[in-house]
This record gives sequence, C-alpha cells and structure tokens, in this order.
Amino acid sequence: MLPFARITIIGIGLIGSSVARATRKAMPTARITAYDADPAVRETVRALDLADDVADTAGASVIDADFVILCVPVGAMGAVAAEFADDLPGDAIVSDVGSCKGSVLAALTEALPGATIIPAHPVAGTERSGPEAGFATLFQKRWCIVTPPEGADALAVERVAEFWRRLGADVELMAPDHHDRVLAVTSHLPHLIAYTIVGTASDLEEVTQSEVIKYSAGGFRDFTRIAASDPTMWRDVFLTNREAVLEMLQRFSEDLSQLQRAIRWGKGDELFDLFSRTRTIRRSIIDQGQDDAREDFGRNHEG
Amino acid sequence: MLPFARITIIGIGLIGSSVARATRKAMPTARITAYDADPAVRETVRALDLADDVADTAGASVIDADFVILCVPVGAMGAVAAEFADDLPGDAIVSDVGSCKGSVLAALTEALPGATIIPAHPVAGTERSGPEAGFATLFQKRWCIVTPPEGADALAVERVAEFWRRLGADVELMAPDHHDRVLAVTSHLPHLIAYTIVGTASDLEEVTQSEVIKYSAGGFRDFTRIAASDPTMWRDVFLTNREAVLEMLQRFSEDLSQLQRAIRWGKGDELFDLFSRTRTIRRSIIDQGQDDAREDFGRNHEG
Repeated sequence: MLPFARITIIGIGLIGSSVARATRKAMPTARITAYDADPAVRETVRALDLADDVADTAGASVIDADFVILCVPVGAMGAVAAEFADDLPGDAIVSDVGSCKGSVLAALTEALPGATIIPAHPVAGTERSGPEAGFATLFQKRWCIVTPPEGADALAVERVAEFWRRLGADVELMAPDHHDRVLAVTSHLPHLIAYTIVGTASDLEEVTQSEVIKYSAGGFRDFTRIAASDPTMWRDVFLTNREAVLEMLQRFSEDLSQLQRAIRWGKGDELFDLFSRTRTIRRSIIDQGQDDAREDFGRNHEG
Repeated sequence: MLPFARITIIGIGLIGSSVARATRKAMPTARITAYDADPAVRETVRALDLADDVADTAGASVIDADFVILCVPVGAMGAVAAEFADDLPGDAIVSDVGSCKGSVLAALTEALPGATIIPAHPVAGTERSGPEAGFATLFQKRWCIVTPPEGADALAVERVAEFWRRLGADVELMAPDHHDRVLAVTSHLPHLIAYTIVGTASDLEEVTQSEVIKYSAGGFRDFTRIAASDPTMWRDVFLTNREAVLEMLQRFSEDLSQLQRAIRWGKGDELFDLFSRTRTIRRSIIDQGQDDAREDFGRNHEG
C-alpha cells in the first residue's frame, strides 16, 4: 500500500529531481506530476522523462494530487503555495524539503488556510544544482526530519514519514523551532563560514588567486565544495533562519576570538586541548555512518 | 643518477613514513636510514620494514648521510637539529617538510651553523597520523614548495627539487616569507576555522552533541575532517606562523562581520553576489586538478 498515489513535485532542481527519480524507482505505480516556474527546466524534465506529467502552471500541477511536495528555495515557498491554493484538493497533504522549518510552516499555513501541512527536511544534497544534478540514491541512509505543526493529524504525519522511508531515508520527528537551531549549527553556520573564507582568500592582494587555487590542497579546497552550493537557496536560508544563524555565529565568533588570543599569547596547551577534543567528533561521525571512513574523503592519491 | 644516495629521515609520522615509502619505490637503490624520538615508533618502522636502517639516536642516524630530511612538528625542528649537529657530514644537505618556512629556516640555521639548509614543504597530507598512516603515492601530482635561503647553492636546491620530483611532486620555488603568507590562507586559516567550528558545535547546550553528529551531513562533517588532524603539528604551526595567521584571521573576521550585518539587515543581494563569486573558485580548483571533480567529494550515495 503506497503512502500516496498521485504525487506533485514543484521545483525541479537537485532535490526535486532526486525526489522524482527516487519515487519512480521506489514507487513505480505512483503517478508523478512535475512543475517548475522556469520553462527551460520543464523542457529538461520532459527530455529526461523525470515525471509522468509536466504541468505548465502550479495550479494545474496539483489539481488531482494527494501529495504536493515543494522543492523550491525557502524564500519562494509562500508565493508558490499561493499560486496553487485555489486548485488544491481538500484531502491533499502538502509538504516541502526546505532547510528552515519554522518560517516555511508559517508561510504555507498563511498561503493555504485549512490545508494539511506537514513540512520535512531531508538532510542530503551535493554542491550541484538543477534537474540534471539529481539522482535516485541521494536520500539513501540519510536523515529526513519531519516537523509537523502542533496538533497535526498523526496519520498524515505517518504517510509523509513513510514516503521518505520508501525513498531510503531514516525519519526523525522534531519540533520546527528545534530543527532550525540544530540545522543552524550543523548546516547553516558551516556554509556561512565556508562562503566567508573562500571570499576572504579570493580578495587578498599580496597572495594571488592563482596561488590560492594552486596550493588549496593544504585545507582550503575542503571549504570550496560547500561554498559552491546554490546561491539562491543559501541566500534564502540565511535570511529565513536569521535569528538562529546569528546566534550560532555569535558563539563561533567568541570561540574564534579566544583562539586568536591563545595564538597571540603563545598558549600552546589551550590549542592542543581543543585540537584533541575535535578529533573525537570526527570519529563519532564516521562510527555512525555519517561520513566516508576512508582518509581524505577517499580522494584519489594515484595522481 | 640519483639526487641522493644515503637518505636520513627523522620523524616517522604520516609524512616521514610516506617519504620513506615513496623513496623506496622511486629510488630503490638509495639507502634509507630512519630515526624517531619515540622508541615505539622505531619499533613500528622496523616491523613495517620502512627503512634499511633504524638508528637509536639522531646523531647516529645522520653519520654518513648525504641528505637529511626532518619530518617532525615545526616547533621541534631546532631541538632535533641540535641533537645531530656534531655528527652531520660537512657535505650533507639538510631539508624538512614543515608547514612554516621562515621560522624553520631560522631554527635550522641557528642549530647547524655552516650547514647547507634547503627547506621544503610538500602540500599534501591526510587527517591521519603516525607511521602506519603514510603511503607511497601521497605526493603524486601535489605541489612541493622549496624555499631556499637567499644566496643558496643552486646545485643543492636542484638536488632537493629533483628528490621531490622523483617522489611524484611538482616543484615550485618560493621565498620563505611569501610561502608563509600563502599557506596562512590556503592551509593554516582553514584549519583554524575548522577546529573552531567543531569546538563551537560540541559546546552547545540546547543542541546535543548527538544531534550535531547525526545531522552532520548538512555541511558540518566537511569541517570535521581537517579538525581531526594531528594536534601537536597544528599547535606548532599556529605558534610558529603566528603573525601571518593572525593577519589572515583579522581579514576573515572583518568579512564575517560584514556577512553577519548583511544577514541582520536582510541584504539578500549582497549574500547572493558573494555566493555566486565563491562558486567559480571551486570550478578553478577542479579544472586545475587540485580536487576531486566528482560531486560531494565522490562520497558513496548507495547507502
């Protein structure tokens, strides 16, 4: 018994196209309708045959859906929901894949009064973007955090959870606000720091950009991967989860100042203690299957 | 014609043991002598058969060497050189693999008056440590920066450069001070930032450490790899290259403050512009073969 029979995916980028591919594979009898605001993307979706139907408006895409999943940047959720509000069947469940949950829940609730809204966030992705970048196994063994509003219908929550389990994800329930604080530290702050340091390095005058690129294997290159992520998506994340991000950033800055002071005053023991402590976190992440156990991310060392 | 016939490697960790393995493979007729201050490491070197000889003192290890390469933390260079100063043959060339060059050159010059000192820095490594962690292909297609002092003998410089080319590295010459500024941004600052953010995340009260680990695939896990690097080595790097690191850190902090302000005041365009700019740096690093072209560092997505 499938959790949903007629699934509409709105926004066909890395995540939306991965949801389409994974759904095809895991639930081949479900009917998939796709919509994207960009006509060129709709054309690509048709060419790649990612969906059974490609609609030309948001309204037409939801008209007989029992599940609508929004895969657009978090700042666009409210507007796109408003576009299809009048066409949404009364028994459809609406969900999304956004990286911030409190603001998305608020925007969808406002745009879709009376609808059943069960937000979710699959913690998965790569640095690539667009419908060609997706793949069916993206959610395998990754966490999907479902963040129902207070008093949500338990059966609706379970159907959304089951949908993600079918795509290979492990599902966890969390309150939207707590989700936003957890992700501020495990995802949003790391992206912010990576974007910053890559910008800092490319702005130096006395060290050339070609030197930065050439000697990036000393550590810098690790940061450039997440600093290559989709600019629109991340702009929206920072503007939307502003308060949690600014608070985590404040803590980070305090810790950085302390380290700066330790370097300035030659406090080697303080540095050594921190560097030993951080080493154990890496070990836990690998032990729990959340990263590649191979050294150097399994990079090729054969030249 | 080999650049050197009797090579002494002092300090047999990740880099020292990789130099030994790569030398064996590339120059099988060269005689390799190894020394490490830790008797347990010397035992491992014997058990793994990484060298032709394992000496029990630094002095004994250099006694008939034509090349001595120091692979110890940068803070220990001067002391270990002083240990073997009286036994060093007059025509031997001394080099090292340290991540800071100005201070190492000064320390070696002081400890070994009159000796031929040609420092170098292979920009290569993994997050692992110790003699078991090394491998022969670590330097393949990586840059090795040779930083001769002013007025250095050109033939000695060329022999050190040729040694690294034999190990598979591409060699570049650079003044020691410029090296230290380039590496402050491409290697030292990234490590400092990574250590800091991993520390910040593990110190939160309202988000548990188990949540940080569980949802680390959102970006955080990328930082934990370099924050798992050798604590002694990195303590020494920050204390030794203090001025360049503090200057780069200052620039980073200014840029971070500007981004913080953009988030606080909702300046989406400013965020979008930076995030688009950083994306192109990643592309250049991949185009120049300095990182894995596969998305997400080629991590396994099959679950």
